[in-house]
Amino acid sequence: MSMTSAREYLERFANLDLGRAARSGVPEVVLAEGKTAEQTMAIARRMLDQVGRVLISRVSPEVRAALQEAFADTVEWTVYSEGRTLTLSKPGIAPPQRGGRVGVLTAGTGDLPVAEEAIALCIEMGCAIWRASDVGVAGLHRLFEPLRAMLDAPVDVIIVAAGMDGALPSVVAGLVDVPVIGLPTSVGYGFGGGGVGALTSMLQTCAPGLAVVNIDNGIGAGAIAGRIANRAADARRLR
Amino acid sequence: MSMTSAREYLERFANLDLGRAARSGVPEVVLAEGKTAEQTMAIARRMLDQVGRVLISRVSPEVRAALQEAFADTVEWTVYSEGRTLTLSKPGIAPPQRGGRVGVLTAGTGDLPVAEEAIALCIEMGCAIWRASDVGVAGLHRLFEPLRAMLDAPVDVIIVAAGMDGALPSVVAGLVDVPVIGLPTSVGYGFGGGGVGALTSMLQTCAPGLAVVNIDNGIGAGAIAGRIANRAADARRLR
Amino acid sequence: MSMTSAREYLERFANLDLGRAARSGVPEVVLAEGKTAEQTMAIARRMLDQVGRVLISRVSPEVRAALQEAFADTVEWTVYSEGRTLTLSKPGIAPPQRGGRVGVLTAGTGDLPVAEEAIALCIEMGCAIWRASDVGVAGLHRLFEPLRAMLDAPVDVIIVAAGMDGALPSVVAGLVDVPVIGLPTSVGYGFGGGGVGALTSMLQTCAPGLAVVNIDNGIGAGAIAGRIANRAADARRLR
Amino acid sequence: MSMTSAREYLERFANLDLGRAARSGVPEVVLAEGKTAEQTMAIARRMLDQVGRVLISRVSPEVRAALQEAFADTVEWTVYSEGRTLTLSKPGIAPPQRGGRVGVLTAGTGDLPVAEEAIALCIEMGCAIWRASDVGVAGLHRLFEPLRAMLDAPVDVIIVAAGMDGALPSVVAGLVDVPVIGLPTSVGYGFGGGGVGALTSMLQTCAPGLAVVNIDNGIGAGAIAGRIANRAADARRLR
Amino acid sequence: MSMTSAREYLERFANLDLGRAARSGVPEVVLAEGKTAEQTMAIARRMLDQVGRVLISRVSPEVRAALQEAFADTVEWTVYSEGRTLTLSKPGIAPPQRGGRVGVLTAGTGDLPVAEEAIALCIEMGCAIWRASDVGVAGLHRLFEPLRAMLDAPVDVIIVAAGMDGALPSVVAGLVDVPVIGLPTSVGYGFGGGGVGALTSMLQTCAPGLAVVNIDNGIGAGAIAGRIANRAADARRLR
Amino acid sequence: MSMTSAREYLERFANLDLGRAARSGVPEVVLAEGKTAEQTMAIARRMLDQVGRVLISRVSPEVRAALQEAFADTVEWTVYSEGRTLTLSKPGIAPPQRGGRVGVLTAGTGDLPVAEEAIALCIEMGCAIWRASDVGVAGLHRLFEPLRAMLDAPVDVIIVAAGMDGALPSVVAGLVDVPVIGLPTSVGYGFGGGGVGALTSMLQTCAPGLAVVNIDNGIGAGAIAGRIANRAADARRLR
Amino acid sequence: MSMTSAREYLERFANLDLGRAARSGVPEVVLAEGKTAEQTMAIARRMLDQVGRVLISRVSPEVRAALQEAFADTVEWTVYSEGRTLTLSKPGIAPPQRGGRVGVLTAGTGDLPVAEEAIALCIEMGCAIWRASDVGVAGLHRLFEPLRAMLDAPVDVIIVAAGMDGALPSVVAGLVDVPVIGLPTSVGYGFGGGGVGALTSMLQTCAPGLAVVNIDNGIGAGAIAGRIANRAADARRLR
Amino acid sequence: MSMTSAREYLERFANLDLGRAARSGVPEVVLAEGKTAEQTMAIARRMLDQVGRVLISRVSPEVRAALQEAFADTVEWTVYSEGRTLTLSKPGIAPPQRGGRVGVLTAGTGDLPVAEEAIALCIEMGCAIWRASDVGVAGLHRLFEPLRAMLDAPVDVIIVAAGMDGALPSVVAGLVDVPVIGLPTSVGYGFGGGGVGALTSMLQTCAPGLAVVNIDNGIGAGAIAGRIANRAADARRLR
Repeated sequence: MSMTSAREYLERFANLDLGRAARSGVPEVVLAEGKTAEQTMAIARRMLDQVGRVLISRVSPEVRAALQEAFADTVEWTVYSEGRTLTLSKPGIAPPQRGGRVGVLTAGTGDLPVAEEAIALCIEMGCAIWRASDVGVAGLHRLFEPLRAMLDAPVDVIIVAAGMDGALPSVVAGLVDVPVIGLPTSVGYGFGGGGVGALTSMLQTCAPGLAVVNIDNGIGAGAIAGRIANRAADARRLR
Repeated sequence: MSMTSAREYLERFANLDLGRAARSGVPEVVLAEGKTAEQTMAIARRMLDQVGRVLISRVSPEVRAALQEAFADTVEWTVYSEGRTLTLSKPGIAPPQRGGRVGVLTAGTGDLPVAEEAIALCIEMGCAIWRASDVGVAGLHRLFEPLRAMLDAPVDVIIVAAGMDGALPSVVAGLVDVPVIGLPTSVGYGFGGGGVGALTSMLQTCAPGLAVVNIDNGIGAGAIAGRIANRAADARRLR
Repeated sequence: MSMTSAREYLERFANLDLGRAARSGVPEVVLAEGKTAEQTMAIARRMLDQVGRVLISRVSPEVRAALQEAFADTVEWTVYSEGRTLTLSKPGIAPPQRGGRVGVLTAGTGDLPVAEEAIALCIEMGCAIWRASDVGVAGLHRLFEPLRAMLDAPVDVIIVAAGMDGALPSVVAGLVDVPVIGLPTSVGYGFGGGGVGALTSMLQTCAPGLAVVNIDNGIGAGAIAGRIANRAADARRLR
Repeated sequence: MSMTSAREYLERFANLDLGRAARSGVPEVVLAEGKTAEQTMAIARRMLDQVGRVLISRVSPEVRAALQEAFADTVEWTVYSEGRTLTLSKPGIAPPQRGGRVGVLTAGTGDLPVAEEAIALCIEMGCAIWRASDVGVAGLHRLFEPLRAMLDAPVDVIIVAAGMDGALPSVVAGLVDVPVIGLPTSVGYGFGGGGVGALTSMLQTCAPGLAVVNIDNGIGAGAIAGRIANRAADARRLR
Repeated sequence: MSMTSAREYLERFANLDLGRAARSGVPEVVLAEGKTAEQTMAIARRMLDQVGRVLISRVSPEVRAALQEAFADTVEWTVYSEGRTLTLSKPGIAPPQRGGRVGVLTAGTGDLPVAEEAIALCIEMGCAIWRASDVGVAGLHRLFEPLRAMLDAPVDVIIVAAGMDGALPSVVAGLVDVPVIGLPTSVGYGFGGGGVGALTSMLQTCAPGLAVVNIDNGIGAGAIAGRIANRAADARRLR
Repeated sequence: MSMTSAREYLERFANLDLGRAARSGVPEVVLAEGKTAEQTMAIARRMLDQVGRVLISRVSPEVRAALQEAFADTVEWTVYSEGRTLTLSKPGIAPPQRGGRVGVLTAGTGDLPVAEEAIALCIEMGCAIWRASDVGVAGLHRLFEPLRAMLDAPVDVIIVAAGMDGALPSVVAGLVDVPVIGLPTSVGYGFGGGGVGALTSMLQTCAPGLAVVNIDNGIGAGAIAGRIANRAADARRLR
Repeated sequence: MSMTSAREYLERFANLDLGRAARSGVPEVVLAEGKTAEQTMAIARRMLDQVGRVLISRVSPEVRAALQEAFADTVEWTVYSEGRTLTLSKPGIAPPQRGGRVGVLTAGTGDLPVAEEAIALCIEMGCAIWRASDVGVAGLHRLFEPLRAMLDAPVDVIIVAAGMDGALPSVVAGLVDVPVIGLPTSVGYGFGGGGVGALTSMLQTCAPGLAVVNIDNGIGAGAIAGRIANRAADARRLR
Repeated sequence: MSMTSAREYLERFANLDLGRAARSGVPEVVLAEGKTAEQTMAIARRMLDQVGRVLISRVSPEVRAALQEAFADTVEWTVYSEGRTLTLSKPGIAPPQRGGRVGVLTAGTGDLPVAEEAIALCIEMGCAIWRASDVGVAGLHRLFEPLRAMLDAPVDVIIVAAGMDGALPSVVAGLVDVPVIGLPTSVGYGFGGGGVGALTSMLQTCAPGLAVVNIDNGIGAGAIAGRIANRAADARRLR
């Protein structure tokens, strides 16, 4: 076999990719889950040195304590979700303001930790956030005020996090005309538990303009929402 | 082994059951699916002779034609769902008016045939029906008028038929204080299709007061709703 | 490091629906599982202040100990299921007596904790309870006496909790004329374990008048049974 | 690699097997499904020539017509299940009477065709059959008489065929002391349909002494029941 | 026999949401699958009268023939996917040009019919389309040129349709910085067939910026892509 | 706080079926899993008092230690599977010798603990046991000697325990003419792990005369094998 | 109505990878399933013109008839599996003889059509084939002779096709020292039917040296076996 | 209490297949998971005595510590994957050099521990290894250099380990002409997590020449790759 063809294809993609790293707009996220405190700290330190900021997700109390001892006041802290999601930054290093506008709704309070992974990533991507919690379909009347505020902004995209029956994203997508990203969470039990029911329900939506990411994939929801919002923001900025 | 114990148990249940047949209030339904036209007609004829009325479900056009030729005008016809569900009765033989009040909502037009199996059975059980179609979560504004009418009646129970994301029963159960029976239908495609998504979503409901039957089991939804409604109606009648 | 943001989120997490009982007839239930003892106590205290009673489910021994230390004799205790389900009430504050009558049967002793969630909620909804345990199909003769007592009452609805083969609800629904709510429990192992077999069997029932809730959803079973029973009771009360 | 070891093992099993064919007691069954009428007839003709009898299952009307034209009155016919299962035999060639006694119960009439595959095979294996149909849990009182007759015989094993909720085998195994073979059938719809619910329910049984075969595997149920019954019969015969 | 009731139901079946396009930016699509030619034509006629254009999906050859006979040259035709997806319009009635730019890639030729549902809807939503087919991972070298053209446009969003292993969307999302919508198709067989493998693979993506719709949901992919693209286009238009 | 209600429930929890052995030939087995040491001891003591023997399964080291302290030398011990399965008996109280002959084969050493549950129950049912371990299909040559011994006995039934690919029961059923009970174990990992692959493989068997019980249901396998063997033994005894 | 666009799409649908054989050693296979006779013939003609041979799989009788009429004696025919798999070649154009040696075993006759897809592809890849059919675990003694012949050759790899319990590949992999490719087929019914049981069983194998392809993927099994065999053959050829 | 029986069982538990390497070319691997340190050490000691080397997988830190204390410097250690996979050997006892050449690629760093099980086994089988990590589809440009090196070697087979979307094996199989073994790992979360998505994606591959083993079955991947490579190596050696 001649290696030429395989070599050619890979070379062209490598070149294509060289242009991407600079402009993809999705920063690397450090998943602390499955890493030791030492591993997490080493990566965090390297990223702080190189890009000045680092977003760390799924942080256990032990790892958070280790990070606090290691970095203390030498960095600025942003703490989400009872400390499960963290951003550390060198003093004065803020995310670039891209100008995207992202709405984030959660059906129940249990959906918050995952939704905040999305929020944290969108903030790192330079977006502004409009948010509201606990507006699920068992009490729809709580939905109207925050949704009105989001449409008045107007936001470029809405992330809707829901576990259990996963019905909220369909309801929202039927009421608005912006793209909606369904974020199923692992809240739930019994048959369809662990988020499977929520995911299934969102995939079966009757409402137009809804796409989904995997269960508990808050980072994934933030990445696509950030891309959507910044795409619109770039156009606005060029005015 | 002594047969005594097994014999005793069975005898006591047989006795218990003798009291039930007369008062269970759920008439036998003839499932035409999987039967020949001849078999269906033979059963229908026997039931007309014995109880004066017969409800036949899942009727194909061929079986309906055969029934029309066989019975023509000698019986009274009630035709549901493009002829898929039928009630035949001897002239003047109406169902006993038990007085239950049943609301029936469908999310989409595709849910109608299954919902009408429930309606037909509730009518045979002597209930009055309040109904509305095509009020799914992709257009929630259509839901409010019919739901208000049902609560004004007031109905004793609401059946909510939905396929796809199965979100409507949860929304309804969150808005009312009567029992709600979720009836998932096999409307849907892809992952969670064939009603699995709708069933899962209903089982995962966050709203209180919702129980479900199996996919496309309109007869089952009618049977429990009829029992619930007639229980309340009996109490009203005894006033 | 400022923990302000983390604290903020914590404060917002329990946007409790205190008005729900009035609107829906189903009081809010505090699910202790997944909450710290502090969170559970804070919610319990608020609900005691505002509505005088609180039902707490899935209580661990640690949380129960914390509750006992916090409230001791200043409240009245009702303890179900080896302390897993609890009701606390200010002295003299009983649930409103609505008058619904609910039967509760369990197939095995392992189904008891989940069944008692339903019982506790029905009691909070003002229903009276008829109950019997360990009457599953492997020893059907034990079913006779309690079932007769329920039909003599007569109860308005019967909840039947069963794990494993989930066969008992079908047997019961075939013997009675009241609505039956199947409550599958996660008792079981191997293929179809964790309650999936029981749920599936109940959804496939051949008997009329049976609807189901999700696996281990004792609260859900109690909510719909309470609504059904109180609907009938309202009619009786109006006589 | 030396072939010696592999060769040795296989040679020993081949020897073991030579003794089996004569005494296994389970005749070969011709599955007509998926074969042309020509293929089916060729096999039938060969078996009639060699062993004098042939059991053919899953026979379509077309294949049955072809068989009738080919064999007409030159063979003796035993026809089960509306012609779906057939036994052809040369005049005077009956199955050897082994003396096993097999009970066969079906929950609904839809379970009959599969149950009759088991019956036909047991008859070919030389067993006597006690049978009753339509004795499912939705009408348990019908179970008493036939079960008494089977226990009076007494039968050596009971096959219980059931679709839908698959509850009957558990009920029966709880009432008797002979081995019970659960035969799930593909009767059923929606979630757990196609026999999955029945199979799951039987595997989850709380009753002692129940084992199962795959969905619609009437031949498999007959084979194990025949082996069980003939084992007992051999002992009786040796008296 | 009076067929009144059946006729009534038929008349009510298509309670169309003609105002949706104005509210949500996504025009109503007529799903021909499951409708008779008469029903499809009636809806098409009404929509042509009211909004001047109609997009019809899942058109069978029979229905297409009926539409051709009914409308012939009185409307303008746009035919996609061997006639399976169609747009009819009154002369001179073009979709409003919103200005969104949508890229559409398909992994194999079998993914084309579903991808063209997305294309057709995006065109109705006023978007311009960049497209390329048969660029799956088994021959990645074909991907390079079309992807470069899309990034040069630049497109606002890329839909990537893939069945089988569903690997292409992940590869694309790793190479670009625009949002990517994964559209799993039911191309595939065996385990994970019918699109389940493709859907699963897309949900498990390692690449940032990918969200998915259900299997074969070309209309859903078009709806969210159209919303994303038009959001960006609105910003550009306002410059 | 009064714990009266909790205590009451505890007292009722073990409504034991002490008469079962007499009626069904299968003695009650105490499942220690999910019970406290106190609960297990209380039941064991009661059964020793009433029937003189007790079989306890799924015993943890803690519970075994507690049992040893409580009963020490006042009872006779039979210990299986590293102490996970135990039989306690009053001095001189042996199981009634019914005379059934049961063969037990295990594919791997990991299948032993579950197989020994079956062995222990068969011994309690008065059967004699022929057994061999580690004779799975990856080393078929080890199967020959033990299988010959079983067929020489001859045994009345063979239990074959296997996890992973579950192939051994099919191989055995193809080599013998006695009934075979497949006992899938939860040995296995990845797709089809936890015994699902083994169960599925056994249900799909091509060999005649194989029926199965649920995954890890050693007690269930013992119960049906014991019934089969004792049925044959009764006939032998009556000679 | 202009059908221009539909025609355009059709022309583009078969962007065939004619250079693949040179690069990857695996020739392109034409999957006739899902293509019209016209489409299949057009591709076949082009491949005959360009590479002189074409392998066509999943050929229906209609397509085969059309091919026969079109090509008749102008090409040489190799017909496998009752005409379901075909190779056409220009006179004198044989596959290049690479020298790989492939063994192919099938458990049952129903596995043959899929196994012959693998055989046909291996032949096109220039391999020699050793084959045997109907050697499944229900009659292991038939396995000995053909396996001995394969090990004597010796073959470089053995493909083992099996449906149902899928046990044969594990048995074979435990007896030989060459790589084994498990090819699960969709033969089977009920739970684990359609090949899922066979696939699962093979993935759970206890035997070393077995890898699998998807259900019914005969072409895939042939491709990897051909690559394995030709790798070894290249080394032999270089001697 | 006599623990005799328990001790007996323990002694029998490891009926090791010490002759396997000679017959099958794949040495026995000791799976430490599920064994006590004592059991693992006993087996290791016996294998060191008899064959001079032992490969131990899934070693916990506790077991590793025990092994270190027991064997210390009396054996030579090879440590893989943070100590999870180990080879111990008597001084001077190296694996026989068979000469196979195996490439191993991993998509992410999380796939490394499983891939190293394959590497360790291939080394014991006498193969040379070419390896590269972290070359998944989210950064395809990193794939080029290591793949070139493998094709230049040239390797006889490539193992590709991937979790999550499992896309890398398909991409690699589309670029090379050697056999590829897909090794799905349990890296992943949510729907399709635990490796199911990766496995499914690999089974659905569009690329030729890819076969798979079960999730996390590094030993299985090593066994087939080693067999493939040594087959080719034998041919080379015979030159």
